[in-house]
Amino acid sequence: MNSNELLTLLKAIEAGKRSPSLALEQLKQLPFEDMGFAKVDHHRALRQGFAEVILGKGKTPAQVAQIARSLLRRKGSKQNILITRADGKIFSAVKRIARSAKFHPLSGVIAIQRNAEITGKGTILVVSAGTSDIPVAEEALLTARIMGNRAEHLYDVGVAGIHRLLQHGEQLSKARVIICVAGMEGALPSVVGGLVAVPVIAVPTSVGYGASFGGVAALLGMLNSCASNVTVVNIDNGFGAARVASSINHL
Amino acid sequence: MNSNELLTLLKAIEAGKRSPSLALEQLKQLPFEDMGFAKVDHHRALRQGFAEVILGKGKTPAQVAQIARSLLRRKGSKQNILITRADGKIFSAVKRIARSAKFHPLSGVIAIQRNAEITGKGTILVVSAGTSDIPVAEEALLTARIMGNRAEHLYDVGVAGIHRLLQHGEQLSKARVIICVAGMEGALPSVVGGLVAVPVIAVPTSVGYGASFGGVAALLGMLNSCASNVTVVNIDNGFGAARVASSINHL
Amino acid sequence: MNSNELLTLLKAIEAGKRSPSLALEQLKQLPFEDMGFAKVDHHRALRQGFAEVILGKGKTPAQVAQIARSLLRRKGSKQNILITRADGKIFSAVKRIARSAKFHPLSGVIAIQRNAEITGKGTILVVSAGTSDIPVAEEALLTARIMGNRAEHLYDVGVAGIHRLLQHGEQLSKARVIICVAGMEGALPSVVGGLVAVPVIAVPTSVGYGASFGGVAALLGMLNSCASNVTVVNIDNGFGAARVASSINHL
Amino acid sequence: MNSNELLTLLKAIEAGKRSPSLALEQLKQLPFEDMGFAKVDHHRALRQGFAEVILGKGKTPAQVAQIARSLLRRKGSKQNILITRADGKIFSAVKRIARSAKFHPLSGVIAIQRNAEITGKGTILVVSAGTSDIPVAEEALLTARIMGNRAEHLYDVGVAGIHRLLQHGEQLSKARVIICVAGMEGALPSVVGGLVAVPVIAVPTSVGYGASFGGVAALLGMLNSCASNVTVVNIDNGFGAARVASSINHL
Amino acid sequence: MNSNELLTLLKAIEAGKRSPSLALEQLKQLPFEDMGFAKVDHHRALRQGFAEVILGKGKTPAQVAQIARSLLRRKGSKQNILITRADGKIFSAVKRIARSAKFHPLSGVIAIQRNAEITGKGTILVVSAGTSDIPVAEEALLTARIMGNRAEHLYDVGVAGIHRLLQHGEQLSKARVIICVAGMEGALPSVVGGLVAVPVIAVPTSVGYGASFGGVAALLGMLNSCASNVTVVNIDNGFGAARVASSINHL
Amino acid sequence: MNSNELLTLLKAIEAGKRSPSLALEQLKQLPFEDMGFAKVDHHRALRQGFAEVILGKGKTPAQVAQIARSLLRRKGSKQNILITRADGKIFSAVKRIARSAKFHPLSGVIAIQRNAEITGKGTILVVSAGTSDIPVAEEALLTARIMGNRAEHLYDVGVAGIHRLLQHGEQLSKARVIICVAGMEGALPSVVGGLVAVPVIAVPTSVGYGASFGGVAALLGMLNSCASNVTVVNIDNGFGAARVASSINHL
Amino acid sequence: MNSNELLTLLKAIEAGKRSPSLALEQLKQLPFEDMGFAKVDHHRALRQGFAEVILGKGKTPAQVAQIARSLLRRKGSKQNILITRADGKIFSAVKRIARSAKFHPLSGVIAIQRNAEITGKGTILVVSAGTSDIPVAEEALLTARIMGNRAEHLYDVGVAGIHRLLQHGEQLSKARVIICVAGMEGALPSVVGGLVAVPVIAVPTSVGYGASFGGVAALLGMLNSCASNVTVVNIDNGFGAARVASSINHL
Amino acid sequence: MNSNELLTLLKAIEAGKRSPSLALEQLKQLPFEDMGFAKVDHHRALRQGFAEVILGKGKTPAQVAQIARSLLRRKGSKQNILITRADGKIFSAVKRIARSAKFHPLSGVIAIQRNAEITGKGTILVVSAGTSDIPVAEEALLTARIMGNRAEHLYDVGVAGIHRLLQHGEQLSKARVIICVAGMEGALPSVVGGLVAVPVIAVPTSVGYGASFGGVAALLGMLNSCASNVTVVNIDNGFGAARVASSINHL
Repeated sequence: MNSNELLTLLKAIEAGKRSPSLALEQLKQLPFEDMGFAKVDHHRALRQGFAEVILGKGKTPAQVAQIARSLLRRKGSKQNILITRADGKIFSAVKRIARSAKFHPLSGVIAIQRNAEITGKGTILVVSAGTSDIPVAEEALLTARIMGNRAEHLYDVGVAGIHRLLQHGEQLSKARVIICVAGMEGALPSVVGGLVAVPVIAVPTSVGYGASFGGVAALLGMLNSCASNVTVVNIDNGFGAARVASSINHL
Repeated sequence: MNSNELLTLLKAIEAGKRSPSLALEQLKQLPFEDMGFAKVDHHRALRQGFAEVILGKGKTPAQVAQIARSLLRRKGSKQNILITRADGKIFSAVKRIARSAKFHPLSGVIAIQRNAEITGKGTILVVSAGTSDIPVAEEALLTARIMGNRAEHLYDVGVAGIHRLLQHGEQLSKARVIICVAGMEGALPSVVGGLVAVPVIAVPTSVGYGASFGGVAALLGMLNSCASNVTVVNIDNGFGAARVASSINHL
Repeated sequence: MNSNELLTLLKAIEAGKRSPSLALEQLKQLPFEDMGFAKVDHHRALRQGFAEVILGKGKTPAQVAQIARSLLRRKGSKQNILITRADGKIFSAVKRIARSAKFHPLSGVIAIQRNAEITGKGTILVVSAGTSDIPVAEEALLTARIMGNRAEHLYDVGVAGIHRLLQHGEQLSKARVIICVAGMEGALPSVVGGLVAVPVIAVPTSVGYGASFGGVAALLGMLNSCASNVTVVNIDNGFGAARVASSINHL
Repeated sequence: MNSNELLTLLKAIEAGKRSPSLALEQLKQLPFEDMGFAKVDHHRALRQGFAEVILGKGKTPAQVAQIARSLLRRKGSKQNILITRADGKIFSAVKRIARSAKFHPLSGVIAIQRNAEITGKGTILVVSAGTSDIPVAEEALLTARIMGNRAEHLYDVGVAGIHRLLQHGEQLSKARVIICVAGMEGALPSVVGGLVAVPVIAVPTSVGYGASFGGVAALLGMLNSCASNVTVVNIDNGFGAARVASSINHL
Repeated sequence: MNSNELLTLLKAIEAGKRSPSLALEQLKQLPFEDMGFAKVDHHRALRQGFAEVILGKGKTPAQVAQIARSLLRRKGSKQNILITRADGKIFSAVKRIARSAKFHPLSGVIAIQRNAEITGKGTILVVSAGTSDIPVAEEALLTARIMGNRAEHLYDVGVAGIHRLLQHGEQLSKARVIICVAGMEGALPSVVGGLVAVPVIAVPTSVGYGASFGGVAALLGMLNSCASNVTVVNIDNGFGAARVASSINHL
Repeated sequence: MNSNELLTLLKAIEAGKRSPSLALEQLKQLPFEDMGFAKVDHHRALRQGFAEVILGKGKTPAQVAQIARSLLRRKGSKQNILITRADGKIFSAVKRIARSAKFHPLSGVIAIQRNAEITGKGTILVVSAGTSDIPVAEEALLTARIMGNRAEHLYDVGVAGIHRLLQHGEQLSKARVIICVAGMEGALPSVVGGLVAVPVIAVPTSVGYGASFGGVAALLGMLNSCASNVTVVNIDNGFGAARVASSINHL
Repeated sequence: MNSNELLTLLKAIEAGKRSPSLALEQLKQLPFEDMGFAKVDHHRALRQGFAEVILGKGKTPAQVAQIARSLLRRKGSKQNILITRADGKIFSAVKRIARSAKFHPLSGVIAIQRNAEITGKGTILVVSAGTSDIPVAEEALLTARIMGNRAEHLYDVGVAGIHRLLQHGEQLSKARVIICVAGMEGALPSVVGGLVAVPVIAVPTSVGYGASFGGVAALLGMLNSCASNVTVVNIDNGFGAARVASSINHL
Repeated sequence: MNSNELLTLLKAIEAGKRSPSLALEQLKQLPFEDMGFAKVDHHRALRQGFAEVILGKGKTPAQVAQIARSLLRRKGSKQNILITRADGKIFSAVKRIARSAKFHPLSGVIAIQRNAEITGKGTILVVSAGTSDIPVAEEALLTARIMGNRAEHLYDVGVAGIHRLLQHGEQLSKARVIICVAGMEGALPSVVGGLVAVPVIAVPTSVGYGASFGGVAALLGMLNSCASNVTVVNIDNGFGAARVASSINHL
């Protein structure tokens, strides 16, 4: 509710086009639809210009499907819908509502694509360190694409075999934003960050064992990166990284 | 050393313009100047397009001054020089070498501005939660400016008095990138992130006591932000946040 | 065993109404009933004026049922009985003893309501941040009600969509005590605390992943809240929050 | 900025009593005074009904004095002013502005009392475990008093000498709210919480060594209290505990 | 292998009663029997004067049975055998070898009692805080008994109902050693330690949730106990506590 | 306040020898002397049979001296007085009150010996791992002695030179209780515990650097000791270890 | 890609034996085979002179088999193949491709031995503390052997029965490298390190409970070892320890 | 005290060349000289074949000098003496005893070189990431040299400027052992480990701020290194790394 919008509404009241109590009602009801267990923010997609997103984890299949239906029902909207951290049961429920829904079991992503337009200006490159990091990398890749970005990937280029990474200099240098996904010591973003000038978004993964502490080692490594163009998101948060990358790529 | 550059060099060898051993020497000597205690990377500023930066902490005043002199001596370069985490002693040493150097004691920043051109496309807004967060916010602000960005600030708008923040909706909505600086519970980026569509770079500060654990509470809060356009840098790392923000703002 | 009660007893002895050894026995046996595996404190409900509570977790269905029967058997008592962290098996066992028992599977609460009188002075408002926080919020809501309070809820009003919260200003301002339930960064109590003058009891939840560390991020956020009318209970402790809220609401 | 106030303002606009742009300005300027380094929230004291509070830590003596002067200057206001975490230098600066200011060096509290009216309904009792916990306990005591409460204290009643506590049953039973201050294992609130029916606010202190980890042991102990009427504030946060206690005591 | 024994052996060599290489062999083979996967220390029971103990956890039923058989086979030995952290499968395997073996499923203890003599001088009292702490308390109780001690228990006397504990003053005062078992905030040993002069061995349990961190809160509480006659063993280590208590009780 | 004492008092009331209110007064005033900042528990030394102890840390020299005077003034008492964690200033203040006070600067212990009788039954042996652990070991040694025990020490016998320890087998085997003081990896108690049958009290020290985390590594090592006759006290708590050892040695 | 190799290639280009673009292609394709989900580094075995290793964990049986087939297919190569952290399903898939594959279920190791030559100069001795540490010790033992080393083991020689270790002095003194595997307090490497002059590689295991924190106690103990010839690898990383030991043993 | 030595001694007794009690005395007194505060292990240098080492930290200048004198006095010994973590005061005290002592203030190392023979077989290369890591790197370098190794260094080659490292391929490939010193994210050992086949000993440093947690981030990164020829020592432990490297280099 920023001041511009408030000003417009206040002017409408002054001009007699809206009664105060009606305006208040409008303010209260406009931005979301209350389903009891969730308040669906139809306004957000408009306000922030990206696809609708539903976090599948912690919701029942029925709840996810109900939210998806609400999003699909909105007139005039042609935005893509992304469901993250979903499973087969959620997909079955969603499939009934949206035939075109596609499920990516490795990353647990469901995508309902209604709009294939590329709106991002450049390419988002998703780089990951090991085979086990691919699920998180894929979540990032699919998120970036459904938000209207060209997105490429470069898998299994961990720093212990630095030549594998160095031989992709061209791909690195062409990306507008880079997402670096790595578990264990999380050193990849530092090396990548030193090779490029664009922003690097680091995603620690929970891959590893023992003193990796479920991704904490990678997270700390990334927060302490000696490359200064690196920022970090939560452990395994491929979605968040792609959301920010898309936001940057649309600037 | 990306593959394009390597290809060019290889072609020059093939064309007889360079001998292999000379080429190897060239490869080795080009990117940095070795001072024994430091290898100054003259190449980086060219490669990454921003001001030269010296981390003052952990270096003697003489070392900092010597690196600064090396940077100033390079012919043709007109880039700004930024020294972070400096103190009065470092400033005295630098002042002798660079008369125009300016010291900002609150944030410990020394700036040698040789070029006032604004090259960033939009405005970087630095928002901070409390009065005690200002030193970190100022580091971010000065870094953003010396890297060629328009940068504004909004101080003391913590979430416990949410109206103070909401009344700056216009400033928030005009920024191209937002840096959010907060200690204690680190909740500011979540609120700001929900109000805007642009990338928000969160800087946890070590402000607080007890269970703030020197910024850990704020760091964790920001990593778990329910606003998905938020990324995070290290505790008190105002410089890093501005470096990324500038990188984004120059895209 | 406070000194007033001791004095009364001592006076009864002096007056010859009680023999010393009998008095000692009485002191020893009065406050609880020893079942071997548990000492049921019949005295507590009298002393503290709220419903009887049994923590289901870590007890067998038979043990829970046995304690419940003991509570139901006490003559003259009409207090409600609350069983927390229960499951279907416990409910089956309890149902046999108390027909009126009701089970709320989402929150694992069993309620045996024998007294519907509202004894709390105002309204306890339970506010929660996300859909996944609802189980903990519901535990708080049901606890508040069975302890004789009017209790309302406001779900899915997380700070990343601050307008959803702000549009419930009236509900917030009418509450006598507010319980704030949030996982992830746990920022909700800071925002709510800044909007109201009444006490806010914050409940961190284990909702989240990665660096949420099972609720630690939310817990630390709440302990460091910049709103000073916020106190905190253990992670997922909806019962405890409501117990304190009820205690405040009965003052 | 709750919806009632917004409605009133909207009605004033509808009635022609206010122009929309003026109303917006009014909304923006009313609640605080911007000093650059701080936004003083004059509105808060009105909104939340307690004394003005300045956190001394992290501010210069001049800054504290400037904020104090701003608070003292406000016409019609007779509210008390409390400065926490202050030292002798801050006191000197404040003394020049407010002759009646009193400094309590043990707890670092400065109090400017302009109003001695008791507005709280009952007594707030501050109980502390050891001699070293007294500074935090005193901060709580002084805060409670300056916010208009009757407040008493009970020092050095740690649980290893349980009889010292038990002999104060009368004081415990007369309090309307109890603040429990303890370091080391932080067991006091559990024992006190079991003896009374009123809310107990637990303050862990950083007193201890080794595995006390600066108050973490006490904090965890209190969060896990087996007495369910206990809530917790940050380590050493005597002020916060008293602020909540006062809020409860004014209900 | 203390120096006395070495001297005896050296003297035997000097006296021609033993050849050096034989003596070395003897030294090497005496103290244990090598089973490949385990070196059973027959010597320990002699050296340390208590029952033979097998940790069931991490061993297969067959391995446990094989070790038990080896212990039972030793001629002349009448010592009791204790198997901790066992389950039904281990019990079946052991039962075949030792008919008199008894299984206590709550604590996972198997006892093979061959000697019921009481050798400890006084009584070991096991005190536990809540019903959920009983499994650990029982492990301690059974261990104490099989090691030849009189052992009693006092269950469900947590500090939030301090009167339940205080009414057992006689039992407390008669014990020669006290074992205190508690989860959650782990406050019980501090209170008990303050009431008695004998050594108190504190056992934190993993009972609790959220910020109990699997017993860490209780562990820290006990390490920071303000009662100075308290020492601590590992989380859930009822066996270890009883082993030390027995060692003390046999002095 | 155990039940025996209460019964005696109750009988005195019944017999008319005491009025109830007088009895209550007596109960309240007997066990300690209230100095405002401290409640000196004269009763404890009687109840627990050891020397009076004052923790110097966190108290002013004047406060320590005042408590010491109170202890010295008590008629008929000839108990020793021990002041731990003291410094030169505290010693100066105490010296004025007690001429015979002796200060041990390495461990910060002040001892006022009024009674040199040996009341402990055997010898307490203090074993420490490295030269840097000596201050903590000395605190243990002096505490053990002033509490009436024969106490010996064995310094610099860390496990990396196991022969240094093994050659003291005789001393180890003669001790009735052993205190093991070690920093770094804290392995000494495991080795010592395996060599003897008596109780071993392990004291982790904060000696070390880096991943010793101020004694945490040693603490965890000791809690996980594979020798089952080991219990643990807080980091650097030489006093506590000796207090328990003395308690055991007096059984 | 070290400078020697680059120089050779550059010289080949100068000599006309290679075109620059072909050289670049060669550089890019030589070191690994890209399978999409993995980039198999055929170059590494040549470069580092040991067996091929596949980490089974986090890969599907099909993926592991596909990588194994790729390694087996390479002409002229006779190197052994090691698959770690495998299970029965992986073994079934691998067995189809390599008949000679052997599975060791205790440690989850699959070995495909094609070359039994002993290339290491001395013996690698694997020492472990308890029966539960054997799986990790076996992983180390099998890895050492398949990499061409003589390797022996010494199991169940924990420090609480120090004589069991001391009687193996000859084996200890003959080893060229020692791997020490221990959980709980992780003290074994300190004792072993003090007895020998060769490098000791310590492997903490996740064996233990409570305050062992899944191997953290052992890890910290080993990092703080007072024996200075000890280095440490990750918790449960038997493979890594043997990899380094083999690397040392081949010097 | 390994079994070979014991056997020799036992044979000497059998042959009548030694009396048993004399042999025992000899065993006891041979390996160290007891100074009360320290047991100087003259035997270790013989047993382990490297220079004598004194840890300066935690000892007084007089203690260090006294130990140094004891080492210098031993007849026939020509071994070098190394004092780590020393300061100017310690150096003054040592200088009086050993004129040839040299002090390196950056790393706090004092070296008394009596023997310049190179006994190690190859070169130890010390590689460090940043200028601030040099003190730890220098401790490693000087230790390696005084233990008889050729040692070289390569400073300021952090992974964010990977070309600086890659251009030293020849130096990397010639080293027999590599020590990698790095703070912040500690990624250097992973990159170096992937480039070479020899053992890499990683030393995390406490360089960094915020979430580097005094070297913990680097430590965790190194423990989780994806390069399998990496082992780790304690934070800032340059000495330990060089001690192991020398041990390897002398094999």
